Amino acid sequence: MTADLSRFSINQMTVKQLLLPELVAACGQLGVGRVGLWREPVQEYGLTGTAKLIREAGLTVTTLCRGGFFTAIDPVERSRALDDNRRAIEEAATLGTDTLVLVSGGLPPGSKDLRAARERIADALAELGPFADDHGVRLAIEPLHPMYASDRCVVSTLAQALDLAERFPAHQVGVAVDTYHIWWDDQAPAQIARAGAGGRIHTFQLADWITPLPEGVLDGRGQIGDGAIDMREWRGYVEAAGYTGPIEVELFNEELWARDGREVLAETLERFHSAFL
Amino acid sequence: MTADLSRFSINQMTVKQLLLPELVAACGQLGVGRVGLWREPVQEYGLTGTAKLIREAGLTVTTLCRGGFFTAIDPVERSRALDDNRRAIEEAATLGTDTLVLVSGGLPPGSKDLRAARERIADALAELGPFADDHGVRLAIEPLHPMYASDRCVVSTLAQALDLAERFPAHQVGVAVDTYHIWWDDQAPAQIARAGAGGRIHTFQLADWITPLPEGVLDGRGQIGDGAIDMREWRGYVEAAGYTGPIEVELFNEELWARDGREVLAETLERFHSAFL
Repeated sequence: MTADLSRFSINQMTVKQLLLPELVAACGQLGVGRVGLWREPVQEYGLTGTAKLIREAGLTVTTLCRGGFFTAIDPVERSRALDDNRRAIEEAATLGTDTLVLVSGGLPPGSKDLRAARERIADALAELGPFADDHGVRLAIEPLHPMYASDRCVVSTLAQALDLAERFPAHQVGVAVDTYHIWWDDQAPAQIARAGAGGRIHTFQLADWITPLPEGVLDGRGQIGDGAIDMREWRGYVEAAGYTGPIEVELFNEELWARDGREVLAETLERFHSAFL
Repeated sequence: MTADLSRFSINQMTVKQLLLPELVAACGQLGVGRVGLWREPVQEYGLTGTAKLIREAGLTVTTLCRGGFFTAIDPVERSRALDDNRRAIEEAATLGTDTLVLVSGGLPPGSKDLRAARERIADALAELGPFADDHGVRLAIEPLHPMYASDRCVVSTLAQALDLAERFPAHQVGVAVDTYHIWWDDQAPAQIARAGAGGRIHTFQLADWITPLPEGVLDGRGQIGDGAIDMREWRGYVEAAGYTGPIEVELFNEELWARDGREVLAETLERFHSAFL
């Protein structure tokens, strides 16, 4: 294992205080060649403008976040979600990334049926997989930490994500491996091997686990090295499973967002380096 | 399934605003015959005084919470933890309960090694199991929700808890099945069957899952019926696994604690009734 910085990708959310041109400039200054983007800031700057900016800077877009939210029962909501995901796939293609990350959705209001919600995700993937394929985009189901199971994502483990993904061809549907969501799970290493064997590790993301968790538990992801997760160990699992792609750092953290974005990017790069020395 | 109220047990923490004599009186008024106790309020009132009060009221103590915190590396801390657990076992025996619930402990400062921490739990159980047995007390490893894995309990799933428990005789070490901690886990039903087949379901506890989670994620457990968990389903699993013991409601909830404790107890009983009609 080396701290090969060419593997590093900065997810836009980590430094969301930077406007897109600022992010691109900071990447240029620090020699960062890869970024993960989010739909909202891309739309704010403009899709074609973003694509042009990124292309001209010679940056690679490793992932687009995010599609998903497939669990609605109401047919109108459901069809709206599918439409929105088709737009997300088109946006991914325009931005030149081959990977759209999916946050699959929580329980619809009043429902307590996790299994049925997971089946509705499979139904949506059956519709979207071929459409994504046509656009050269792969869907990456991201298992979210079980603390998000009711309100954000009923897919809580890599095993569940793979149970869904494996119903479809690997070039249509795979998984996102994010240390923050799976680090506690003693079954995850074996599931990473399963994902790798099937060619389904579509992205590998890092964030560290720090406590206390903030209210709502969304914006408490730790800078690499600040928390409980052994990053070398997890990178070892994905590499043993054959993954040689980008390693994206995606942090949601109020304290990082309050700081100068270029400084946070430089720190993140340095932490990435130290984690894999 | 019936809403048989003789199965109901109120965990003291649910109504921690009630002093012990108030709790005992409220149980008498509402026909509640079973309580789960916590060490701190018992010690505050006095151990022998509590035992006498409970005995004279004809109440059954279903569990004592909690032993555990076995993950320290430092030998002095470790030996202090074992001593404290021996006291907890003696207290359980004095209170007339056969079950001590264990919260096993998080990662020690600076450590990122979940596996090693779990092994230290096994080491502690090997020392404490026979001591508990001598006192007529069974240890119940409680898997805590994965959101507590770093700072409270490195045992995050029923499967992990059983992997530990099964190294020891069932009358020494079993598991605590608490809906709040396992509801998201699609492997939990099979693990409940495994636990039941081995005679290792030492307690069954209910709390509902509500969001948003509060800062620190400790005191946001929902009143039965307020959240995402299908209580009938989970009771069905433990009963299919042969469990016929008490069903204890254990809520940590700031809003419930701010209300009149007798009113909360009556509401909890009513919610229990409605959940299993």
